[in-house]
Amino acid sequence: MRGFMVISNSAVTSQCFSLDDLPGSSGRLDVVCRSITNALLVSHGVRRDTMFYALLRGEPQPPVCLRIVGAKVSGLNPDERSVAGMLRSALGKVGMIQTVHLELEAHPGFFVSRRDLDQILFDMRKNGFSPMVVEEGGVDIGDFHLPKNPFFILGDQDGIVDRDMRKFETLGFPRVSLGPVAIHTDQCVTILHNWMDRRGVTSG
Amino acid sequence: MRGFMVISNSAVTSQCFSLDDLPGSSGRLDVVCRSITNALLVSHGVRRDTMFYALLRGEPQPPVCLRIVGAKVSGLNPDERSVAGMLRSALGKVGMIQTVHLELEAHPGFFVSRRDLDQILFDMRKNGFSPMVVEEGGVDIGDFHLPKNPFFILGDQDGIVDRDMRKFETLGFPRVSLGPVAIHTDQCVTILHNWMDRRGVTSG
Repeated sequence: MRGFMVISNSAVTSQCFSLDDLPGSSGRLDVVCRSITNALLVSHGVRRDTMFYALLRGEPQPPVCLRIVGAKVSGLNPDERSVAGMLRSALGKVGMIQTVHLELEAHPGFFVSRRDLDQILFDMRKNGFSPMVVEEGGVDIGDFHLPKNPFFILGDQDGIVDRDMRKFETLGFPRVSLGPVAIHTDQCVTILHNWMDRRGVTSG
Repeated sequence: MRGFMVISNSAVTSQCFSLDDLPGSSGRLDVVCRSITNALLVSHGVRRDTMFYALLRGEPQPPVCLRIVGAKVSGLNPDERSVAGMLRSALGKVGMIQTVHLELEAHPGFFVSRRDLDQILFDMRKNGFSPMVVEEGGVDIGDFHLPKNPFFILGDQDGIVDRDMRKFETLGFPRVSLGPVAIHTDQCVTILHNWMDRRGVTSG
């Protein structure tokens, strides 16, 4: 498996945003939408070996965790608006979730829960993933030994906050960097997949 | 400079499409929008050394050429809808263009003309670009010597049509491939930039 997590400290956690102004009304949920597309979709198909998490921490009811399972997903289209529409209907179900242990399937392969970072990391370990943080200043991916079942942790347009970064350092997660130019989160996802495709990284 | 051209045989050539259903109403102009974003934008900035062409051949008035000049562009946002809005207003000006020699600046750094493939290739040569075709089955980018001022020619969701491919072969354009998995056009753009960033490919 290949795993990704995007942590967005601004993305809204309700369905109250406009599909006509995603960046302005959703706390940059557009970044999450594009990351989902690049994590899950290839030409005329889905990456069945990929699991994607988005941890949303914006108002009004953080945290919300979206989990998209490539092996199960269907109906995912590459355009940003259609992905945002799926997110919106998933976020509409958050009010029904009373416990962190409950996860609802909002669309096929598209799950929503109230899990916070610690629960996601627990889930990740349970699924046999090997975590690493994608961040400027890390080891260059060209020199980095990609483990089986890699799990890439990425920040949003504002990067990973200090508190999270300290946690990842304490946990000993390695840091990997993708090149000399700072690029968008969703662009990082594309490049990571390409490195794994080229190196034949698959299920462990 | 870094150059890109995306050839879309389906993308509409008028402003008569819906921003609420880009894939369904615009002949997949969404592919062009995402390619523009990935060609021109990085984290908190614009790639000033990049020039992007889109050759649109859909109905009702093909061909239309969009040319975006990184050194001059402003007001370009990463969300698909806002890029599509810029394209729509640019396409609204096509009716004013009576000759292939006329190019209108629809937005800062965002030009529209009725140039066809041959005129774009002439323009490309005049600007000192070295052309290559991005296509499965080409030389792997890892083994490919990237020239100064590279110019990457990409197809849309249906690939490059045979007639164009024969032309590129006749002209002796090399073919380059990005990896073992067929990915989206806009994802190719991201990966190409990353290779250039890593190898320090800049203006010649």
